[in-house]
Amino acid sequence: MSLIVHKYGGTSMGSTDRIAQVAKRVAKWFRAGHQMVVVPSAMSGETNRLLALAKELAPATVSEAYHRELDMLAATGEQASSALLAIALQAEGLESVSYAGWQLPIRTNNAYTKARIESIDDARIRADLDAGRVVIVTGFQGQDEQGNITTLGRGGSDTSAVAVAAAMKADECLIYTDVDGVYTTDPRVVSEARRLHTVSFEEMLEMASLGSKVLQIRSVEFAGKYKVKLRVLSSFTPWDLDIDEEARSGTLITYEEDENMEHAIVSGIAFTRDETKISVLGVPDKPGTAYQILGAVADANIEIDMIIQNISKDGLADFSFTVGRGDYARTLDLLQHQVLPKLGAQEVVGDTHICKVSIVGIGMRSHVGVASTMFRTLGAEGINIQMISTSEIKTSVVIDEKYMELAVRTLHKAFGLDQVGTGA
Amino acid sequence: MSLIVHKYGGTSMGSTDRIAQVAKRVAKWFRAGHQMVVVPSAMSGETNRLLALAKELAPATVSEAYHRELDMLAATGEQASSALLAIALQAEGLESVSYAGWQLPIRTNNAYTKARIESIDDARIRADLDAGRVVIVTGFQGQDEQGNITTLGRGGSDTSAVAVAAAMKADECLIYTDVDGVYTTDPRVVSEARRLHTVSFEEMLEMASLGSKVLQIRSVEFAGKYKVKLRVLSSFTPWDLDIDEEARSGTLITYEEDENMEHAIVSGIAFTRDETKISVLGVPDKPGTAYQILGAVADANIEIDMIIQNISKDGLADFSFTVGRGDYARTLDLLQHQVLPKLGAQEVVGDTHICKVSIVGIGMRSHVGVASTMFRTLGAEGINIQMISTSEIKTSVVIDEKYMELAVRTLHKAFGLDQVGTGA
Repeated sequence: MSLIVHKYGGTSMGSTDRIAQVAKRVAKWFRAGHQMVVVPSAMSGETNRLLALAKELAPATVSEAYHRELDMLAATGEQASSALLAIALQAEGLESVSYAGWQLPIRTNNAYTKARIESIDDARIRADLDAGRVVIVTGFQGQDEQGNITTLGRGGSDTSAVAVAAAMKADECLIYTDVDGVYTTDPRVVSEARRLHTVSFEEMLEMASLGSKVLQIRSVEFAGKYKVKLRVLSSFTPWDLDIDEEARSGTLITYEEDENMEHAIVSGIAFTRDETKISVLGVPDKPGTAYQILGAVADANIEIDMIIQNISKDGLADFSFTVGRGDYARTLDLLQHQVLPKLGAQEVVGDTHICKVSIVGIGMRSHVGVASTMFRTLGAEGINIQMISTSEIKTSVVIDEKYMELAVRTLHKAFGLDQVGTGA
Repeated sequence: MSLIVHKYGGTSMGSTDRIAQVAKRVAKWFRAGHQMVVVPSAMSGETNRLLALAKELAPATVSEAYHRELDMLAATGEQASSALLAIALQAEGLESVSYAGWQLPIRTNNAYTKARIESIDDARIRADLDAGRVVIVTGFQGQDEQGNITTLGRGGSDTSAVAVAAAMKADECLIYTDVDGVYTTDPRVVSEARRLHTVSFEEMLEMASLGSKVLQIRSVEFAGKYKVKLRVLSSFTPWDLDIDEEARSGTLITYEEDENMEHAIVSGIAFTRDETKISVLGVPDKPGTAYQILGAVADANIEIDMIIQNISKDGLADFSFTVGRGDYARTLDLLQHQVLPKLGAQEVVGDTHICKVSIVGIGMRSHVGVASTMFRTLGAEGINIQMISTSEIKTSVVIDEKYMELAVRTLHKAFGLDQVGTGA
């Protein structure tokens, strides 16, 4: 008997028909002899519907008190879908019970709308599993130390599922979603994109942070920290698919490098339009200016991704960095009105027409020249590279967003990702 | 400075525009110097929408586990509307915070879907009021001793509001709804119906239990037990109505009989189609048969209202009683298959085409002949009375439902309720 955690996304929970299908699938696993914990997202569209209501009423000044109420509001979506799934399982003839995050509790810090899980008390879950019940745990939410409801941010249900699996030392955590696994790149952009049978934890982490929407990045971090056996698979296969076949489908996230495995140098191409570039021009080139700029931005809780400082000329340097699209206006405003006057820089300019394209692969560790292949490939297509950042297993470039699809397609081919037999 | 509790029904919370209006009204009271606690219902239609989803998935056998999930599900409606109202108040420039029942907690017994409030911890509310915040408390819900969410049944938010007012010894509890007070009878049936400026607690209790939908009966019981100053008024007056005028509008529920007040003998006419009649015919007339019938029904958790047993003939009696429409089929089935075989009765027959019409008034205590006026009035219209039940301040009759409107109109006139100046 294994302990299995299933997570179902919003599309999988999108209607009572779909919820009934989820119940049949879970019942199949239960009847095969497994203890089952299920973490559902809100029904698709529900979170957006709720937040749109809040936006219609929103105060002019956004405060912590406002974010607290947003979490009270948004958390209802998962509570409702969890109760509905428990009812659907009861209709399947199983005993089932649902718990909101605070009922266990799932304890988080108090960063409303983007809280982090600190601990999970699994006593109630264990007692119910031992009594033969299927346990439903609301995704996306928890409770802070003061008993306020918190949510984990978009995609947070992935993290809930992995955290529950980690806390309970589950044998496997299956993330059911509307794609059938992790691909070499987005199949909507490159039709030759192939599904990876396995992907290393580190690659998955890079892909998640570089714009792949398959898993929330924090769920991958959690999985890595606790070595949760994690699989991404489709909820759109027939619910009565042979269970062994289902258990081998999708993409498995692995932790140990298999020496015998013929890894491709590059496993995938990630890309995102979610970033914008901001440049501070004519900054006096003296110690402390980088901190004056980036410190002010960080103090405003704005996350910075890539940074470059060009070579000083006449004692003046240019300084560029990227921030999320949602923080663009606020960052520009902050720099223009607070930082620039103190700094004595000449100008702040922004560019929203950029994108970031990244190649990811643990093979890059042992292969030289991967980045240069990337630069040569892009150069041959006449694509100018504006910024570069690298890590051990990824290389990212910022380019004009109009070249995004071209860059992704060309790189996908250049690294042989469209050839069957490479990859995992 | 007074402590005031406002309760807003689903229609008053029916859209973001309406919620913004509620916020402006509450802000008016707050700015007039009152401490404000607000209990909102779910947005109109939301509870029905959620329960319809559950019904699509419902198990064949209804269990406690199923009812538990219904409460998890339905409670989300009030949590969402409470958060939205807090946000709307913040947009009005006030500090505001919302609490779900379990966050205080509001403790109930564990009778899912019809729980009763046992205690309310007001520590968090008091602390927030003292800090200058408007506090929103979810209506309709609480938490049992095991930390499960419970709901209080239809109209339960009335009870939540009155219970909060009682626990906090509030100066007044204002129930804002889509009618502007308590009427002598339903104005949709009798156009001459008049609003009562005051109604005694006991009359309100009878009216609520006899089918008046203005207040949930348990909220009236609570108000009586703790002598909560309770007023029913309209949320459809302009939000910026003069606050003193608003505070005097609607209908006030009173506890002490004012000796100087010229009370009408009858204050109101209540009626309901929610009951059905079941008759067990040819019951052997010996001790214990009543218990055999009614005990079995009560054991199945079916509430019985009126009961008559007619005079025995040839050692056989007929036995009739009324049950709610929702329990009709189940009661018939129970009697036919479980009680009848043991009892040796001849037949069970049901009648769903009945209604109950009641006259209510504390004046009946000191005036004789009120019931006989009722019977004479109905007789003169050719309306046959099938069952009668009386208490100190009400008389109810069961009649054919096709005569309901006629009976209500005729009685309203016969007791002078359409004449201005009578009533309270």
